[in-house]
Amino acid sequence: MIGARLDEEVLVILRFRFARLCLLVFTLCTAACAEDASQAWLRYAPPFGTRPFPAYDRMPASLVDLDNSPVAASAQNELLHGVRSMLGKTLRLEPSVTGQDAWILGTPSEIAAALPQYPRPSLDAQGFSLSILSAHSHTYWIVAGADPRGILYGAFHVLAGIAQGQAFAQLAGSQSPAAPIRWVNQWDNLNGTIERGYGGRSIFFDNGSVRSDLTRAGEYARLLASIGVNGCTINNVNADPRILTPQMIQGVSRIADVFRPWGVRLSISVPISAPQDIGGLDTFDPGNPAVAAWWKAKVDALYAAIPDFAGFVVKADSEGQPGPSHYGRSPADAANMLAAALKPHGGIVLYRAFVYNHHLDWNDLKADRARAAYDIFHPLDGHFADNVVIQIKNGPIDFQVREPVSPLFAGLHQTNTAVELQITQEYMGQQRQLVYLPTQWQTYLDFNLHAEDRDTPLKNIVDGQAFHRPLGGYIGVADVGLDPNWLGSDLALANLYGFGRLAWNPNTPADTIAKDWTRLTFSSDPTVVSTLSRMLLSSWSIYENYTGAPLGLQTLTNITGPHYGPAPQSQENNGWGQWIRADPNGVGMDRTVSTGTGFIGQYPPVVARLYDSLQTCPDNLLLFMHHVPYTYRLHTGKTVIQTLYDDHYIGATEAARLVRDWKTLDGLIAPQPYEATLKMLEYQAGEAIVWRDAIDRWFLKMSGIPDDRNRIDHDPNRITASEMQLDGYMPINVTPWETASGGKAYVCEDRSVCTAALHFTRPAGWYNVSVQYFDYRQGVSTFRLILNHQTLATWTADNTLPGEQPNGDTSSRFTLPGVPLRPGDVLSIEGQPNDGEPAPIDYMEMTPQPGSAESAHP
Amino acid sequence: MIGARLDEEVLVILRFRFARLCLLVFTLCTAACAEDASQAWLRYAPPFGTRPFPAYDRMPASLVDLDNSPVAASAQNELLHGVRSMLGKTLRLEPSVTGQDAWILGTPSEIAAALPQYPRPSLDAQGFSLSILSAHSHTYWIVAGADPRGILYGAFHVLAGIAQGQAFAQLAGSQSPAAPIRWVNQWDNLNGTIERGYGGRSIFFDNGSVRSDLTRAGEYARLLASIGVNGCTINNVNADPRILTPQMIQGVSRIADVFRPWGVRLSISVPISAPQDIGGLDTFDPGNPAVAAWWKAKVDALYAAIPDFAGFVVKADSEGQPGPSHYGRSPADAANMLAAALKPHGGIVLYRAFVYNHHLDWNDLKADRARAAYDIFHPLDGHFADNVVIQIKNGPIDFQVREPVSPLFAGLHQTNTAVELQITQEYMGQQRQLVYLPTQWQTYLDFNLHAEDRDTPLKNIVDGQAFHRPLGGYIGVADVGLDPNWLGSDLALANLYGFGRLAWNPNTPADTIAKDWTRLTFSSDPTVVSTLSRMLLSSWSIYENYTGAPLGLQTLTNITGPHYGPAPQSQENNGWGQWIRADPNGVGMDRTVSTGTGFIGQYPPVVARLYDSLQTCPDNLLLFMHHVPYTYRLHTGKTVIQTLYDDHYIGATEAARLVRDWKTLDGLIAPQPYEATLKMLEYQAGEAIVWRDAIDRWFLKMSGIPDDRNRIDHDPNRITASEMQLDGYMPINVTPWETASGGKAYVCEDRSVCTAALHFTRPAGWYNVSVQYFDYRQGVSTFRLILNHQTLATWTADNTLPGEQPNGDTSSRFTLPGVPLRPGDVLSIEGQPNDGEPAPIDYMEMTPQPGSAESAHP
Repeated sequence: MIGARLDEEVLVILRFRFARLCLLVFTLCTAACAEDASQAWLRYAPPFGTRPFPAYDRMPASLVDLDNSPVAASAQNELLHGVRSMLGKTLRLEPSVTGQDAWILGTPSEIAAALPQYPRPSLDAQGFSLSILSAHSHTYWIVAGADPRGILYGAFHVLAGIAQGQAFAQLAGSQSPAAPIRWVNQWDNLNGTIERGYGGRSIFFDNGSVRSDLTRAGEYARLLASIGVNGCTINNVNADPRILTPQMIQGVSRIADVFRPWGVRLSISVPISAPQDIGGLDTFDPGNPAVAAWWKAKVDALYAAIPDFAGFVVKADSEGQPGPSHYGRSPADAANMLAAALKPHGGIVLYRAFVYNHHLDWNDLKADRARAAYDIFHPLDGHFADNVVIQIKNGPIDFQVREPVSPLFAGLHQTNTAVELQITQEYMGQQRQLVYLPTQWQTYLDFNLHAEDRDTPLKNIVDGQAFHRPLGGYIGVADVGLDPNWLGSDLALANLYGFGRLAWNPNTPADTIAKDWTRLTFSSDPTVVSTLSRMLLSSWSIYENYTGAPLGLQTLTNITGPHYGPAPQSQENNGWGQWIRADPNGVGMDRTVSTGTGFIGQYPPVVARLYDSLQTCPDNLLLFMHHVPYTYRLHTGKTVIQTLYDDHYIGATEAARLVRDWKTLDGLIAPQPYEATLKMLEYQAGEAIVWRDAIDRWFLKMSGIPDDRNRIDHDPNRITASEMQLDGYMPINVTPWETASGGKAYVCEDRSVCTAALHFTRPAGWYNVSVQYFDYRQGVSTFRLILNHQTLATWTADNTLPGEQPNGDTSSRFTLPGVPLRPGDVLSIEGQPNDGEPAPIDYMEMTPQPGSAESAHP
Repeated sequence: MIGARLDEEVLVILRFRFARLCLLVFTLCTAACAEDASQAWLRYAPPFGTRPFPAYDRMPASLVDLDNSPVAASAQNELLHGVRSMLGKTLRLEPSVTGQDAWILGTPSEIAAALPQYPRPSLDAQGFSLSILSAHSHTYWIVAGADPRGILYGAFHVLAGIAQGQAFAQLAGSQSPAAPIRWVNQWDNLNGTIERGYGGRSIFFDNGSVRSDLTRAGEYARLLASIGVNGCTINNVNADPRILTPQMIQGVSRIADVFRPWGVRLSISVPISAPQDIGGLDTFDPGNPAVAAWWKAKVDALYAAIPDFAGFVVKADSEGQPGPSHYGRSPADAANMLAAALKPHGGIVLYRAFVYNHHLDWNDLKADRARAAYDIFHPLDGHFADNVVIQIKNGPIDFQVREPVSPLFAGLHQTNTAVELQITQEYMGQQRQLVYLPTQWQTYLDFNLHAEDRDTPLKNIVDGQAFHRPLGGYIGVADVGLDPNWLGSDLALANLYGFGRLAWNPNTPADTIAKDWTRLTFSSDPTVVSTLSRMLLSSWSIYENYTGAPLGLQTLTNITGPHYGPAPQSQENNGWGQWIRADPNGVGMDRTVSTGTGFIGQYPPVVARLYDSLQTCPDNLLLFMHHVPYTYRLHTGKTVIQTLYDDHYIGATEAARLVRDWKTLDGLIAPQPYEATLKMLEYQAGEAIVWRDAIDRWFLKMSGIPDDRNRIDHDPNRITASEMQLDGYMPINVTPWETASGGKAYVCEDRSVCTAALHFTRPAGWYNVSVQYFDYRQGVSTFRLILNHQTLATWTADNTLPGEQPNGDTSSRFTLPGVPLRPGDVLSIEGQPNDGEPAPIDYMEMTPQPGSAESAHP
């Protein structure tokens, strides 16, 4: 379906005849800004230590582009730019193959027409083949693509190889993408904000219109093309109907124009209620012919403006979005109506399975949000048009730290499916914390659902193999923004890169992806590659441990707030259905068939048996599937409660290790990303302690079972504000209580300056001194740390954390290393409020530096 | 005289009681901006590979500052900041020595009062002593200063040692500065421009007033203090009398306030005519009591505002400046009048010996500007007050590439003298070209003048040793500006650093200075240190070779223009007296006693004999001292003319090598300075070719003697615009003619786009293609380089070179490496004029890449 479309569009887009000139200007501009963070992994810097690339001494000097498409022109210009940047040579563009060594770009048939000796490779759509051909006493370096996109992907593959020090001969071979759909979704609002975006404002929209400057949109398409992504949905799935107005379609067509040379097709999210919202109809009933006609006309208008328009993404009957249920219609009714309008143009519908009742009865032990997608969509299997794809989140809940694979993937055999992964770190630290996601994604993609008692890993379902579906693939919710580094954190870009790599080939090891990305982004220095890849690969596990999600507790963030800091109680006693069912005796959601919600029964029998039995259910999903006493012993032999306690301590310790690891790269990485990342990792190490303390406190209170090492709220290095001598600071209650010592923060409300002082009584030595304070989104309080009469440090609470209250969202740590302390010293914190932020504090910690308390005598 | 003053001022400046607090804030601010270029060599980054500094494991944790001065407070805060930054530890400030290991800051007597065991070192003014003392079973790391400045210089010395990986014990020992005067002059104008400044606008003045933001002025004082510089003259020696108005004195006192904590005393340049200019008198005759009274009142007002005011710098009777000669008075009359007013306050007068007639008769073979300073000042020896210092430029002309030492230094035995060196690169490439000056300065400072037939190297004259003078020293014309890196070029900062190091101790090898600066500024990586120091040390010789100054031709820049590009004829036939006396038969200025100007006779006999004889006169000053035929053979055996030809080729080749050397540091240096410096060195390599061609052409025409290798205007790789097929480009005459091929540039005057095309006829191969064009200060022309129909590159002429005409000031080179060319190719330049800059071009060069024309077959 979509494959056929790909050939047709080549003809359509030939009318954009100025594409080549624009591309050349772009290529020259990008060459001038090699240190620009927006270049990400396309820096085209020569790999460390391999200059001057002896393998390329005998490179052909000419380049012949046999394909006459704008996308192949991008491939050609990208090769010119990259070869010049990395090899210091400028290829000559020649119109024909004769009489010279040459790089050849084209489809197999185009190449064979020029070089009859060429052994035509068999390529799937969008695949490419790299080879060296000797003929007529000339040498040809051939980049063959099944189609223009394939040529472009082949060119990017060559350039990534050069950047990593590989000879062209090493790169020879064929590749094809695993699935036809490799899209990103952007949750951009028309006002320029981005839902769950942490990398700045929208690259597409501002103030209700499409931005006049679409430079970054074009650069984004180039970045996406370099990793094989071929589609981008530009607006929030909670869609504003105004996206379908004629003026907006005109603006959106400008975005499609900058996508087009990179083979990225544009799609939009639409609200199913649009015919009523903006169409002047009094209904949006999918069964009403007037509604269908309205959509058909709208789709025709879209294709008139955007000949290669890709289709719609639909979120309906979900979290307050209107849906077909309003008229007693099914998702199939809605999806098929839209699909019918799109079909003549080759467009598709991605209908999201993220449909659930968010007013569930939490008293009902059989109620289970995890069941919703399967319960709703499984009965409709076979009722969807063949250009409809059901877009299913990887897990049954919502991009949590750990979930099982959604059983719906195994429940749709006659329906196209795509897996929706989240690149933006909504529940995963929001780019303020390092979490490398390909490691996590790969556990989902490799998971064998055993549908029909066959081997059916998720990756083989969404690529269409398992059930012989024509369409399917990968959707990544990216939410890049205008920040120079796209996502707000340099290291978070590994997730965007990794999504593309896995969507192209889900069998690529997460370790390979981490190393390739590191080499392309930072350096091929072996220390950088091994250290950073080890940090990336361990980061998900570290985050899982300190955020309190081990044992399958999905997430313990504040799900009714910003989805950021610790707030375990927020899971419970509300209609959202993310219950963890913690009570004084035990914890976990009973989803078994016999005594629980029956969710486990939605899986094929092999998987259902695995999860249903306490004997076989893996520890890391135990509490997702079962309710057990806190004293229940895991396969490790340790109790559930002690495991929860311990894992948080392990996580916080490992988060601190990330800082030490990163510091070994000082001087091996450019100063700007080095410093910015160090700051992020230091913040993360502090936030890991906030998480550890909050979750362990909460479970200690809930279970009444002490930590067998008695660590919780008994840190010998810590002195809370309540134990200090206060001048002006007053206690206030913190919600949730577990995110501050004793449930209290101390604030400076009525004074211009407040202080909190402690008398130090421990042995003399070098200590690291930490101050735990709260940094609201608004206000920039100033703090001063004073030793006796000496100001040791001042700092400001100038972060923009997601909150206006003292709690785990805003709790922050300032650490001054290497302070010499003696018994009798007075250490004080002085806080100066600003703009409604009352310089709130929690505690101080004086941690002896390793070995120093004995050896040095300050 | 000035030494006594130093102790008194400590008392005076105690009234600035808030200095400590300001310093602390400054220290904290600077800690936050470690990548700020304005930090220069004070980055306080841990040295490469030595973390975690095991030598500092047992460092005392306390710091006791026994000296109660603001300057010692700077020392204390600088140590706190540097130790924290490099060692990750915060020293505790303690009020007394008892009962603890401690760092001790103080004068020897202050320290001995607290620690009677301390063996008091004998220190000269501003000197310091570092030592380790064990007493009362405690260890003291002692930074003793003869006075507050000495303490501060000692602290900076400790920190530079730590930054280079040295243990404190290695740093132990005493140092004292070579001379009391270690000043910089800034030629800042009150409107904010800087005469001969290439690093941005003034850090002191803007629009006729002192700037409101003096942050950079304070940072500059810190930078100066770190290298032992103790004075700064803030305004142009071509002085605006308004510097002496009451409002301006008020503003200047604010500058002195930010200098004071760093021990940098402020001085100003004054015009001797000020009493008439702004004083309401009808005369400025130094012999008039009303004039003397006016100056006394003005000086009293200055000291009321600036208690530690340092004194005046005076340029009089020079280059149009008014002077005492107007009234038949001598420099001594003028200087002594000012000195009398300053003396009660401890101030001094620096009277510049740069006095000469710039309307000399060039037809008079006995006329000689080089004689002027000696002729005028030698007769006055013994007539100057003891707080007057004669400020003498290193050579008799004016900061040229090569000059002999000024004979005046040996002609003033009863007069204080200081040597004026130029840090800003007025004749030395204006910070657009790399010239490391300590190498040059050291040849002057080490030169033995043999005064009184004794060993009297220049350094021992200006430090007062040779003639037992109480005052003397070093003046550096710095001209730093608001540019983040102060001088407009990262590498030029080595000259400011080197000036301070040599003024402190002129025996410091230039190589040591280069390596220390490299380690402190960039990295302690051995490759960086060895490569960059080698580049620095060779740079003066390279510049001397390609600018055509070898054999003592002083300078061949355009001396009536911007002192930048080649213009040898500008030396001749005018009143400025920088004649090189080139004629068809020979070249050089006869300054012998017997047949020439007699200048050589101004030297003491040993030196006069050396220079007067062709047998002993060194080749590198030959043409400064003698007029010889072009065929005269040097000590090398080569003729003068062939040496001139060859040396320019050698210089251009070596300039290209600087680029290759720098490229080996890619990845070992932060990206920003790496890229900026690469761009500068590439420009310099092109400008070296412009110089080579211009000077060799000029001497070829003048002498009529061919280059024995026939290289001049016979470059087989070059095709001039006159040989190309032109469309729109028209020739215009270039002045001077030798700075473009055939004396013509080709400009695009009446068209929006012009082209120049050539047919390539040489063997197929990989070539570097260069386009020589002209880039005026105004206008941004756009150029395109086209191979057949392929655009190879576009660039813009956006540099701000000093000129509005096509000549050696504006000639620029764009090089595209690695272009595959074949016989029959058409290479074109397309130029698009902008804002009066007519996209002017000169020639193209196609240079085969080494070995590639044979091995590759493009």
